[in-house]
Order: sequence, then structure tokens, then C-alpha cells
Amino acid sequence: MKKSLIALAVLAASGAAMAQSSVTVYGVADAYVGYDTVKKITAAGETKVSQGVINGSGLSSSRWGLKGSEDLGGGLAAVFTLEGGFSIDTGALANNNGSTDANAKSILFGREASVGLKGAFGEARLGRQYTAYDTLRGLTNNTFDSNTFATTGTVWDKTGGTNLVDYSNRVNNAIRYDSPVFSGFSGSVAYGFGEDKTATTSAANSASLNVKYANGPLLVGYGYQREKEQIGSTLFSVTKSNVVTPAAIADTRKYNLFGASYDFGVAKLTGSYNQAKNDGFKKKEYQFGVSVPFGAATVAAGYSHAKSDSQTAVVDSNKGTGYSLLGTYSLSKRTTLYAGYINTKAESANATVTDKRSLFATGLRHTF
Amino acid sequence: MKKSLIALAVLAASGAAMAQSSVTVYGVADAYVGYDTVKKITAAGETKVSQGVINGSGLSSSRWGLKGSEDLGGGLAAVFTLEGGFSIDTGALANNNGSTDANAKSILFGREASVGLKGAFGEARLGRQYTAYDTLRGLTNNTFDSNTFATTGTVWDKTGGTNLVDYSNRVNNAIRYDSPVFSGFSGSVAYGFGEDKTATTSAANSASLNVKYANGPLLVGYGYQREKEQIGSTLFSVTKSNVVTPAAIADTRKYNLFGASYDFGVAKLTGSYNQAKNDGFKKKEYQFGVSVPFGAATVAAGYSHAKSDSQTAVVDSNKGTGYSLLGTYSLSKRTTLYAGYINTKAESANATVTDKRSLFATGLRHTF
Amino acid sequence: MKKSLIALAVLAASGAAMAQSSVTVYGVADAYVGYDTVKKITAAGETKVSQGVINGSGLSSSRWGLKGSEDLGGGLAAVFTLEGGFSIDTGALANNNGSTDANAKSILFGREASVGLKGAFGEARLGRQYTAYDTLRGLTNNTFDSNTFATTGTVWDKTGGTNLVDYSNRVNNAIRYDSPVFSGFSGSVAYGFGEDKTATTSAANSASLNVKYANGPLLVGYGYQREKEQIGSTLFSVTKSNVVTPAAIADTRKYNLFGASYDFGVAKLTGSYNQAKNDGFKKKEYQFGVSVPFGAATVAAGYSHAKSDSQTAVVDSNKGTGYSLLGTYSLSKRTTLYAGYINTKAESANATVTDKRSLFATGLRHTF
Repeated sequence: MKKSLIALAVLAASGAAMAQSSVTVYGVADAYVGYDTVKKITAAGETKVSQGVINGSGLSSSRWGLKGSEDLGGGLAAVFTLEGGFSIDTGALANNNGSTDANAKSILFGREASVGLKGAFGEARLGRQYTAYDTLRGLTNNTFDSNTFATTGTVWDKTGGTNLVDYSNRVNNAIRYDSPVFSGFSGSVAYGFGEDKTATTSAANSASLNVKYANGPLLVGYGYQREKEQIGSTLFSVTKSNVVTPAAIADTRKYNLFGASYDFGVAKLTGSYNQAKNDGFKKKEYQFGVSVPFGAATVAAGYSHAKSDSQTAVVDSNKGTGYSLLGTYSLSKRTTLYAGYINTKAESANATVTDKRSLFATGLRHTF
Repeated sequence: MKKSLIALAVLAASGAAMAQSSVTVYGVADAYVGYDTVKKITAAGETKVSQGVINGSGLSSSRWGLKGSEDLGGGLAAVFTLEGGFSIDTGALANNNGSTDANAKSILFGREASVGLKGAFGEARLGRQYTAYDTLRGLTNNTFDSNTFATTGTVWDKTGGTNLVDYSNRVNNAIRYDSPVFSGFSGSVAYGFGEDKTATTSAANSASLNVKYANGPLLVGYGYQREKEQIGSTLFSVTKSNVVTPAAIADTRKYNLFGASYDFGVAKLTGSYNQAKNDGFKKKEYQFGVSVPFGAATVAAGYSHAKSDSQTAVVDSNKGTGYSLLGTYSLSKRTTLYAGYINTKAESANATVTDKRSLFATGLRHTF
Repeated sequence: MKKSLIALAVLAASGAAMAQSSVTVYGVADAYVGYDTVKKITAAGETKVSQGVINGSGLSSSRWGLKGSEDLGGGLAAVFTLEGGFSIDTGALANNNGSTDANAKSILFGREASVGLKGAFGEARLGRQYTAYDTLRGLTNNTFDSNTFATTGTVWDKTGGTNLVDYSNRVNNAIRYDSPVFSGFSGSVAYGFGEDKTATTSAANSASLNVKYANGPLLVGYGYQREKEQIGSTLFSVTKSNVVTPAAIADTRKYNLFGASYDFGVAKLTGSYNQAKNDGFKKKEYQFGVSVPFGAATVAAGYSHAKSDSQTAVVDSNKGTGYSLLGTYSLSKRTTLYAGYINTKAESANATVTDKRSLFATGLRHTF
């Protein structure tokens, strides 16, 4: 009797905490010490700046979030995710991607903010979400899709003008559906509303999909994304990697991705080919990687190459190559030491301007 | 022995989580897919824009927060609430109400930030809080005071100039007291300091109260709020529904509210009458609603009307009407599907300008 | 059998919550009602403004955070802290110290954002952190280092120009090491990278250390901090107490601190002497305090004095004195009532300008 009373007392005592089971607080804290070198070569000569840095998000993006799943019976569940990024070196909100737009400064859950239902039919969510195209990229990028060391060939116009810019990994005002897995096959679609229609212009929008086949060691997939901008659109405003928002021109961009990975046991290979084009330009990129496990350690390497067909007007974004090396050592399931080196080079069309960057870094990732 | 050891092990194992019992993480994730139509009629003709949207906070405002209550013995408890809103469609901080003030961008706990004591004497808190007047509105607004579908007759000047603007639901630098219930009677008062006194001007301030009688199916109440602004005041800066801050003029506004609800079991009726005036203008509004439960489902409808006595100078805020329909279906205590329709119309004094808006939306609210 | 099944059921039931044991949500909610008087005396005469206020962070800075410690075996642990401040009177993010820099508005974890390892070797962390110098100040400031009532003699140039400004308590891009305690002795070092090196200028940086001896009732320590700024540097951008960032001049500041405390049982004494200098000016400050416990209550008093050698050009920052009184009463381990009075005076070199401020406040601090 006494023993079950103790047990019941435990049950009672843990009641308050158990009430918390409706929400999980989680995150990643990742920081590294690094040595960063930026070299710029122009007709005027060469400048080189090397310095020590402490930055965050070497292996994985530092983040915190709230998430939960409520069993509604009959295999149905309500799910939600609220996740924001932060710069561990300054404490600042991240994943507003350096936008100078004042609104972007206040993006608390910039990585994901969504609610939906999950069941035998798959999963459907509403809110700010990853695009379906991005999901496939994440699965097939080299060096474990690591935040700093994955070299994915994206050498893009950073001016946000008429030239071709990189895809948005997230989209606002979105509905996304992920199918269940049928004999290894699965797919996802996502659509984001621009909500900026006027009496004279149609709204911006973002559409993306992926189809995947995963069976044992093999994964192959295809991803597509189309981004239709309007001048002044904020649909993608805090999602771009490298453009200042809001949109400066009405542009339609299309991205086609083929990706695959195969795990041989002694080593895992990943690779992808991506073709991007907008109303004026076209770009092709490919990347591949290998990772080799050694007990608690893993060594990985990646290579990427990108080339624009005609983007001659833009400084330092005509051609790009990159390679990287990454070693990880797991202190536990949740804590990983890492050391990595990445080297990238971007050239203008006539190679009169070359930007080179290298980074050696060693750090610690802790998930909670 | 072994069994109690297991129990003790459980106690030990859950210790970390139990330490969490001093704070509860909670929130609401609410998103909908909708079809939004805005029609504007002027002497120059009519424009109409219809588009699909994904927005948040259809039924309840999306929010997250930390709260707790510590038993201090003798019926006394320390209580705190830190609650912020967010836009689930973008991940942005909300409840800074679209202010263009740079400071408002960084309001983390925009819904409430307070700490206080609770006991036989009632409850007293310090911090950013709801006004006592707003509490009565929340209790008597139609369609469950839903964030998007409650039509409360508030057709107000959005220019923040000399014309009459809507009340602030929250106030900074505030002390609030809520009485205990005496035979069904209860009351609340709240006072906010402007903290902007200078050598030549007195400080802004906000004062509000409510008195309520709730007994079985009946609730009746009276609420009052007075807002004394100063030019440049930020007392209400992130609390206004529809004015750009800081205050542009030194204005004193007074709001008088009579509200009631009665639950007949087969249906619940709610209604209120509100009179607002400032140094120049006066406005009257009334609204009522009905809700009918059908098992896990409820159907609700609301109607509102507002009229300004003399606010002729202001475009589209002289007269307003609105009606709405809302159906909810509870998948669980915490998860609700909903579908709603709201239609509002605002006219200028001579009806030369008419703004119409309608929204049909279906969504999901999940509380955690 | 049944009993252990119950225990296992408890274990299972608390599983979701126990999964939370990897992160602790914690914080402080502190608010007070006060009466604030600011008096300014110049050749033109005297102005005096007194008003009621409700503010936060009287006793301790209001904050919230996520932290955790994972046992990695062998005495090693992974540790992280993500902590942000907030103004309980407005809900706004705090610890961006009123910077007008747009980026500072989005500092979510402005108090600390760090991850690291802890073991027999001590503790090492990367990220945004307190300086080692600040740690010693916190240990030896009067009136329990209370946020509002500690008077620490810091009467500094608020213009951020060529004159001497107060030290930064936190630093971005930092690595910090805390030694274990050897026979009462311990020490800490912290270094922050400016990361703003260019082809023509070296990077800003911050270096700090402390050495402490703590044995029974005695604590003595020395702290040093050097801040090397660059024009436009943001290394300290959200850490300064009283300068607008980014840095307006390339300045090197050095701070030397001697601090001590002794607990006689019936009373505890604390005191420190600090000397600060930059490329042009020098300043000395000292402060001391006493606190006397009476059961659940404590009464404390503090005094400080600061004097600049040659900072004649700056209005109201040549000489400063302050004194304060503080009484606390613990309602529980986590909840404390307090009442305090602080009076500060700052004078220009020729005493033609005098700024006086006094505050009487009574409030509540709740930790969670």
C-alpha cells in the first residue's frame, strides 16, 4: 500500500510538469572559433583580410522552439511548430537573413510557424514553412547539410536586381502537404500566397513540390520551385539568403533539382544537380559529397560547382566552385564536437574579379 | 523495497522536469485559409480586390507565453504572466499592432507582462496589462470574442489625428486590481502611468474600471475607460488597434460600456452598448450575438452597428455595420476546426465613400 | 507487481515531461511602483520633475531564459545558456540598452547566449557573455548588486564621444574560461573578437580577467578589462550601458578593479575601488555597502563616489556621488517584497550644472 502511495505521490508531484507534455521546448546551441580569410582580386590588385572569429551555427543553425503533437484518436493528431533562429555570438534573432527591412527585425519564429493535422492521409500545415523543394535539398546536400560547411554551388547575385537570385528556403502565408510513404515513394507540395493583389496587379506566389523514393540505403528525388515576385512583395521578404527585400522587380524564377544519396555502410555518397532560371538568365549547379563513419567520429567532404549562362553583368557571380572538409565527434547523442574547413571561389564572367573565402573552424553543437 | 525504490527512481528521474513546475509554457497556434474581398466605392467608381490568403488568429490570437503561480501559504500566491503574440503566417512578433515606431518592433511580451500577488483580497499586478474596460468587452463580444469574426462595431478613425480613435485594450506601466467575487459581484480597476511628465506638461495616463454581476446563466456589467494622451506619448504606443504612435495630439478619450450575456442552454445571447467621446467627437456602437451548441459543434452569429455624431470630416468612419457567422467543431479540448464568414461596411458621412470587406475562412486552432 | 506497474506507469506518463529535462525554462519577473524625481540645476535656474512610475527590474533585472547541462560522463558536461531581458512595464526586449541601432532591436538573448563544456578543468564557453571583470563587480557591488538600488559610482559620459565611457558588462563573439577553485583561489578570462578587420584597420577587441580568493566569510578580488574600439564597431554595440552605437571613435579603454566583501554574520560589508582611463581621460570611483539580516528581512545601504581627473568638457559627468537604502522581505525562496530609496548627484567640473535624481520604490521580485 505504502509503495503504491509513494507512486501516486510521484504521479501527483509530477503533475505540474506533466501538464507541460502538451509542449516541448527544444533547440540547438552551436558555436565555433574560426579563422576567416577573405581575398578579393580585381584589376586594381588584391586585398586579403584574415582574422579570428567566434560565430554560431557551424554544424547546425542555432535555434529554439516550441512544438507539440496532440493525439486526437483514430490516428489523427494536431501538430504545431514555432521555431526561431538566433546568432549565439550576439544573441540576436536570426533567420531574418540580414534583411534591412524594419519588419524583418521582429521575426520571432523565422524558421517555422505552423499548425496542422497529421494522420493516415499524410500531414497538412498552414503558416510560415519550408518549401517542398528545400526539403529535398536538405536531404541531399553534402557534409550533412551542415550550415557552414555544406558547399552547394550557390553563387548568386546578391544585388536583388534583375539578375538571378538564389531560391527561398521558406515561404510566408503557406499551405504545405506531405504525403505518407507508399512503398518507398513520398511527395510534398507547398504553396504560398503573396496576399498583395491590387486592382491592377495579380499577387505574388510561391509553388514548390518534391517527389522522393527512399528504400534502404538509396534515396533519389526531384524537386521543383517557382517564385513569382511582385515589386514590393514581402512574400519571400525574410526568406532569401542573399537579397534585400522587399522585391525590387517583378521576376519569375524556376528551380529544378535532381538529388540522390546512397549509403554503402563504409561511406555515404550524396549529390545533386540544380538548374535555375528567371526571366533573363539561367544557371546550373551541381554538388556531391562523401561521409565516412569511424565509430563516434565521422569525416565528410564536399565539392560544388555553379555556372551562369549569360549573367555577365554581375560582378563575382558568373562562376563558382567550393570544397570543404568536416570532421565530427559525438560526445553524446546530443553533443558533438566538430572541426571543418571550407574554401569557395567566385568569379565574374571575364575573371577580372575573383572573390575567395576560406574558413577553418572548430566548435561545439549541443541540442536540447 | 524494490518497488518503492522504483518509485523513488521515478521521483528522481522526473526531478528535472518537476523543477519546471514553477513555470508553464503555453500558447495558441491558430491559422486559416481564407478568401478576402475588399471593395471601395467612391465618386470615381468602384474597385474590388479578391484573393486567397493564409492568415493567423482566426478564432483566437496566436500567442505563446510563460506563466506561473507560487503558493506562499495562508491563501497567498505570487503570480506572473509573460505573453507575446505572433503572426503564424510570417513568424513575426504581433500585438505591436502594426506600429511603425521602431521600439514597437521589439515588443516580445506584447500581450501581457505582469507580476503580482493573489489571495483572499483579490489579485493585484504590476506591468503591461489589459485594461479593466477591455475585460468586460471580452466577456460580452459576439462570436466568442473571436479575433477575426467578432464584429464589434468599431469603425474608427485610423489617422490618429484629431478625430476619435478606438480604445486601447492594453496599457503600459500599469497597476491593476481585481476584486474577489462577492455574491456574484466583482470589479476591476487599472491605472497606467504615462511617465512622460515634463517641467511644463503633466503626464499622460489611462484609467479604467469594470463592475460585473455574474450568477448562473446571467452576466451583466459596466465598464469605463479614460485615456489622457500627451503629444509624443508612448503610454498606449503598442496598444492601439489602429493608430500610428506616438500620439500626435493631446487628446482625452472616454469610453462607457454596458454589456450582458445570458445562457439559455439551447442558445447563449450576448450584447453590449458603447459610447465613446473625445474632445471633439462622439460615437455610439452596439453589437449582439447568439451562439447555439450542437454537441461538439457550435454555430454563432453576430451583428454590430456604429455611428458618429459629427465626425464628418473623416473618410469612411462615419457609420459602420457588420455581421458574421461562425461554426466551430472541437476535435478535442485543445483543438478546434472552424469556418467563418464576416462582412463589414463603413461609410463616410454623406456616403460618397464606402468601404466593404468580406472574408470567408476555414482554419484550425490548437492550444498548448 | 501491481505497485511497480504503477511506478512504471508513472514513469511512462511523465515521459513527455521528462524529455524536457534537457532544458530548463527560467526567469525573473520584477516590478515596482515608484516616485521618481529629477532635478537639474544650471546657471539658467532649476527644473524639477516628480512623477509616479511603474517600472521593472528594481531588485533584479527581469529576464527569461533557457538553460541546460548534459552529463557526458567522466565529470564532463555540456552546458548552454540563452537568456534575454525584458521590460515588464512594456513587454519590450531589454538589455539592448536603449541603443538606437536598428539591429539592437532584435536582440532576443541579450543577456547571454553561450554553449560550452564544464569539467575538472573548469568551464569554457563560446558566444555572447559577461566579461570576467563584470563578474567581480557583481560580487562586490553594494545592496546585493541590485539593478536599481546599487549605487556604483559610475557617472559617465553619455555622449559616446571622445570622453570616457563606462565599461561593457557583456561582449559579443566571445570565448570565456572560468577556472576551478584551488584552495579558495579562482580566476576567469574572456576575450571578444571585433570581427571588423579591414584591409587597412585591425579589429576591435575586448579582453578581461579576474582573480578571486574566497574563503568562508571573506572574498577579495582583482578585475581588469580593456576595450579596443574601432569606428563603427559593433562588438560592444548592445552591451554599453550608456553609449549609442556603433562606436563613434577608435578608443582604447582600461578598467582596473579591486573588490572585497566580508560577512560578519550580523552584517556583511562590501566595497570596491575602480580606476578607468581611455586615450584622453582618467576616472576613479569607489563604493561600499553594508547589509544586515533580520530573519526573513534584510536591510542594506550603499554609498559611491566618482571623480574624473580632467574630463572638464563634459556636462554633468565630472564628479558624482550616490547613496541608497534597501529593505527586502522574503515571502518565499522565490518571491521577495522590497522597498528602496536611491539618491544620486552628478556635477560638471565647475559645478555650474548639477543633475540630481531620487527614486523611492516598492515592488515585488518573483523568480521562476
